[in-house]
Amino acid sequence: MNAGHEFSAVRAALPQWVEESRKLTSRGNVASYIPELAKSPASALGIHLLNGQGEHLTAGECGLPFTMQSISKVFTLILALMDHGEATVFSKVGKEPTGDDFNSMLKLELVEPGIPFNPLINAGAIAVSSLIKGDGPEEKSARVLSFFRELAANDKLDYDEAVYRSENETGHMNRSLAYFLKENEVLDGCVEEVLQVYFRHCSIRVTCGDLSRMALVLAFDGQDTLTGKTLIPRRFVQIAKTFMTTCGMYNASGEFAISVGLPAKSGVSGGILTLVPGRYGIGVIGPALNRKGNSVAGVDLLEKLSGRFDWSLF
Amino acid sequence: MNAGHEFSAVRAALPQWVEESRKLTSRGNVASYIPELAKSPASALGIHLLNGQGEHLTAGECGLPFTMQSISKVFTLILALMDHGEATVFSKVGKEPTGDDFNSMLKLELVEPGIPFNPLINAGAIAVSSLIKGDGPEEKSARVLSFFRELAANDKLDYDEAVYRSENETGHMNRSLAYFLKENEVLDGCVEEVLQVYFRHCSIRVTCGDLSRMALVLAFDGQDTLTGKTLIPRRFVQIAKTFMTTCGMYNASGEFAISVGLPAKSGVSGGILTLVPGRYGIGVIGPALNRKGNSVAGVDLLEKLSGRFDWSLF
Amino acid sequence: MNAGHEFSAVRAALPQWVEESRKLTSRGNVASYIPELAKSPASALGIHLLNGQGEHLTAGECGLPFTMQSISKVFTLILALMDHGEATVFSKVGKEPTGDDFNSMLKLELVEPGIPFNPLINAGAIAVSSLIKGDGPEEKSARVLSFFRELAANDKLDYDEAVYRSENETGHMNRSLAYFLKENEVLDGCVEEVLQVYFRHCSIRVTCGDLSRMALVLAFDGQDTLTGKTLIPRRFVQIAKTFMTTCGMYNASGEFAISVGLPAKSGVSGGILTLVPGRYGIGVIGPALNRKGNSVAGVDLLEKLSGRFDWSLF
Amino acid sequence: MNAGHEFSAVRAALPQWVEESRKLTSRGNVASYIPELAKSPASALGIHLLNGQGEHLTAGECGLPFTMQSISKVFTLILALMDHGEATVFSKVGKEPTGDDFNSMLKLELVEPGIPFNPLINAGAIAVSSLIKGDGPEEKSARVLSFFRELAANDKLDYDEAVYRSENETGHMNRSLAYFLKENEVLDGCVEEVLQVYFRHCSIRVTCGDLSRMALVLAFDGQDTLTGKTLIPRRFVQIAKTFMTTCGMYNASGEFAISVGLPAKSGVSGGILTLVPGRYGIGVIGPALNRKGNSVAGVDLLEKLSGRFDWSLF
Repeated sequence: MNAGHEFSAVRAALPQWVEESRKLTSRGNVASYIPELAKSPASALGIHLLNGQGEHLTAGECGLPFTMQSISKVFTLILALMDHGEATVFSKVGKEPTGDDFNSMLKLELVEPGIPFNPLINAGAIAVSSLIKGDGPEEKSARVLSFFRELAANDKLDYDEAVYRSENETGHMNRSLAYFLKENEVLDGCVEEVLQVYFRHCSIRVTCGDLSRMALVLAFDGQDTLTGKTLIPRRFVQIAKTFMTTCGMYNASGEFAISVGLPAKSGVSGGILTLVPGRYGIGVIGPALNRKGNSVAGVDLLEKLSGRFDWSLF
Repeated sequence: MNAGHEFSAVRAALPQWVEESRKLTSRGNVASYIPELAKSPASALGIHLLNGQGEHLTAGECGLPFTMQSISKVFTLILALMDHGEATVFSKVGKEPTGDDFNSMLKLELVEPGIPFNPLINAGAIAVSSLIKGDGPEEKSARVLSFFRELAANDKLDYDEAVYRSENETGHMNRSLAYFLKENEVLDGCVEEVLQVYFRHCSIRVTCGDLSRMALVLAFDGQDTLTGKTLIPRRFVQIAKTFMTTCGMYNASGEFAISVGLPAKSGVSGGILTLVPGRYGIGVIGPALNRKGNSVAGVDLLEKLSGRFDWSLF
Repeated sequence: MNAGHEFSAVRAALPQWVEESRKLTSRGNVASYIPELAKSPASALGIHLLNGQGEHLTAGECGLPFTMQSISKVFTLILALMDHGEATVFSKVGKEPTGDDFNSMLKLELVEPGIPFNPLINAGAIAVSSLIKGDGPEEKSARVLSFFRELAANDKLDYDEAVYRSENETGHMNRSLAYFLKENEVLDGCVEEVLQVYFRHCSIRVTCGDLSRMALVLAFDGQDTLTGKTLIPRRFVQIAKTFMTTCGMYNASGEFAISVGLPAKSGVSGGILTLVPGRYGIGVIGPALNRKGNSVAGVDLLEKLSGRFDWSLF
Repeated sequence: MNAGHEFSAVRAALPQWVEESRKLTSRGNVASYIPELAKSPASALGIHLLNGQGEHLTAGECGLPFTMQSISKVFTLILALMDHGEATVFSKVGKEPTGDDFNSMLKLELVEPGIPFNPLINAGAIAVSSLIKGDGPEEKSARVLSFFRELAANDKLDYDEAVYRSENETGHMNRSLAYFLKENEVLDGCVEEVLQVYFRHCSIRVTCGDLSRMALVLAFDGQDTLTGKTLIPRRFVQIAKTFMTTCGMYNASGEFAISVGLPAKSGVSGGILTLVPGRYGIGVIGPALNRKGNSVAGVDLLEKLSGRFDWSLF
């Protein structure tokens, strides 16, 4: 199927598939550990798909705003790689999937010699946050936001302050992880300042459209095809896509690789960022989560799309 | 670079790269848990690359015979899928990478509700061996051997009886795993019979040429391009390639995905089977293993090739 | 309270307390992993208390026969100590309580450098069984039985063959543990022969009277006060009583030490052997088990006795 | 041996035994995680033994001041029990030994349903610190200090401020544990305030004489035999002595129970508090620690004493 035909076929199928997948939302649960997430509409499902020419397809509640949460980890990893290079970053985090649960314990999040398994689990992402360059947490956060705005081509991208405050106040497990990393000498500097950067980037508010634009840059090896600018070195995009494939969907990453086969990253808000290399950037939102912490309807919709249009990398 | 140019370029580079990578063998150790493996030549490194037209390139000790060991797990998984379908197989093994060590403990090799994490770890492969159809262990083993012979297009493929006997006599850890699976009701039937099938398929003796032919079938979605026959349904090849990417190189799979980016499976004998989709089947042998149990020189050689010719899937 | 007064007071209180504690049996469950245990009467509770002059008190179903199960581990430990001395035995098993669950996994049953935590968990008791002297499993088992008969002063003590066969056939977890110990070079010799000795001593059938007599020997530092013979060196009794206090009641040992404070060992058949140093040997049977695997009514009855008569060691 | 004879015999033996045990200090290491501990004299060994009539025996560097560290956990447990009773305290901490390493990970320090295994591991002691009554951390700390002064009959007992500040600044692992407990809803209130109380009581400076007096109160079931005052209810002393026996010497508690057999609690400063019920309170200091974190020479000296004078409870 050529690119034009496929785009038309996706356009034709999408509305009905969204409604079919939406039915699965009743089997999931919205994250409730902070009030801001608990208020998300449980039955929502939206998608925004963008191709290299800037044409887009949307369906469902694609305009619903949500916070990036773990999806942000992909891009702070990239920024840390751009700030320090591979050697430094991978002296602080490993490269292996864990198989561990969403809320797994510290020990299992560490490999010898005492660094987190990979940059997409919480422990690893906190270590990555500590590597963002900048003079103090405010400047580091400003650099992150600026990078995210450029990738999303959206100057309005900003923090959800209420979510940030809640995460900061109730993030006991992340604090526990961070102090554990400090004990293991993975974190330099002040733990609370690192956590501030981490909680901030998790709290950046986006829509599916923003995610699709950020994903498109990854789909085209670091190039923003709509402006012609190279925003990320290709090697770092490759690293990011590899981690998204092996560790992007928590401890359902292996299952997702078999059922969908695309690089993807999910967040506890119900968002999923994914991409078809050389073709599409995709943002999905569906706040009802399955037992592994991924959007239950979002995963189902991506299975339908990947299966029908043969998008698996494998 | 078009296919013909690339093939020529690989041909030109291969001999020197093999010699360069061979130097790393001094950093590794040959597996020594059974005498037969301990006798492998520590400084050996060989490769056999085969394209869809049947043209091949070889370098180093490419004629060295060795036992498949864990490489066989890929093909018993495929046979079990062909025998029973996805639903049955994945009721006995999971789909997640583990992050655990080569000789990891049982508990960490199981996910809820009590099945092994994936079919490429020992616990999972033993569960898969129990699914091979056949009336008794001899018939099951005969079916495995017959399938492997067809994939390798080599009627002479056979067991290394000495290796089989040694594995059977000293495989205390695999017995421990198997009885643990029995306790968890993952294994039906007689534990010793399942182990016989498992130890047998690990003991099939091959050369890099055999591996390259088996890999070529995977590279062309289940088709033997040299005979035109479809040997494996495409979906099962896709499943196999996905597991090879997420779990094929023990708990260095994540690192290999980033440094090489190809579906691959290694064995404790020092063999690696890998493939470039739509292009090549590749067999590598290098008995000196790194700390994670993979051929130290073999991995290095594949990094060179993938890096230079941009073979990563990502 | 002097000894005579206490004995009278126990006699007076026992029948009513047994009936009170019996009510708790409805909260427990009889072990059901083999048919022979599942047939035990769930609401039974019996006790036999024996003093140094050979006077005894009984109440409830004190004549009910049952298999020793884990209670036997105390006495095989003593026999192994008598056969080899402390140094050899403690090169194969550790001395630490584990805190792990009744059916805990292998890894957690081992301490560095790879030996079981203590002789009262399954892994440790299997290691101890391998140390019993004798030419082959039959002779080893005969020596165990002979030792137990002497301690119980009961020549009729024998195996429950049906229980032995069931344990042997369904003991997959113990086989898994044993092969794991073999892999770790804790076990010498043939795994199946060690397991035969282990399953045999777990299957010795006793009554509360037998337990009370065996316990009396421990209560009097190795002496059978009724015959005047020294059956066990005092130091080995001390070791046994220490393990019974720190590890005797599975992972409720800490709780039992606080609520009862006596050396004790429970078995999955619902038996408990305990003792008051210098005063009594006690056997209890109550097949309904609590979540930790101890007789729910038996523990309650011992709490009443120890609390009322101030029997805690602490 | 009657009490008077024993006291004389201990007096006669002590100086030589201290010198013999002192030789073992060369096999141990002084704790070095904070500068204040690292400065302790590695070859020091001192003991102070006090009987119920107030007679005391000393040998070695018995006047050396040191901080209580983990020894304080016994007495904050008692104070929490006096403040809230058993039910409340044991809703926050369990009663089981762990078998885990000195610096064990969080997961292994928790039992279902998510509370620390026992009050003598760090996680459990932090939970206990949160239960001390008082309006704010200063008042809580003041109550602790006042209680400790009363037990030691020493109004001069005070904090080592330098040690407190160092512990507070570098206590990343304890912070990690505390936030983990907060996440699991074991801790109420402010984590930093709980940690302040915890670090403070660990930093109380004592000598062996102070420890022996505190231990004497435990040896006499809560009575200060020298003043006649009851300072602790007997039941809480019994609970404390039980925990000291099953969990007091880190994960060498099982070994210590077999080799010494007395209730004891060690600290990372090299102190050990122990007691012979109804006879002696004992304080020991020997800063060189063995691999399990206990005073290497102190343990050896107590083995000599307990062995020679038959002090084991068992």
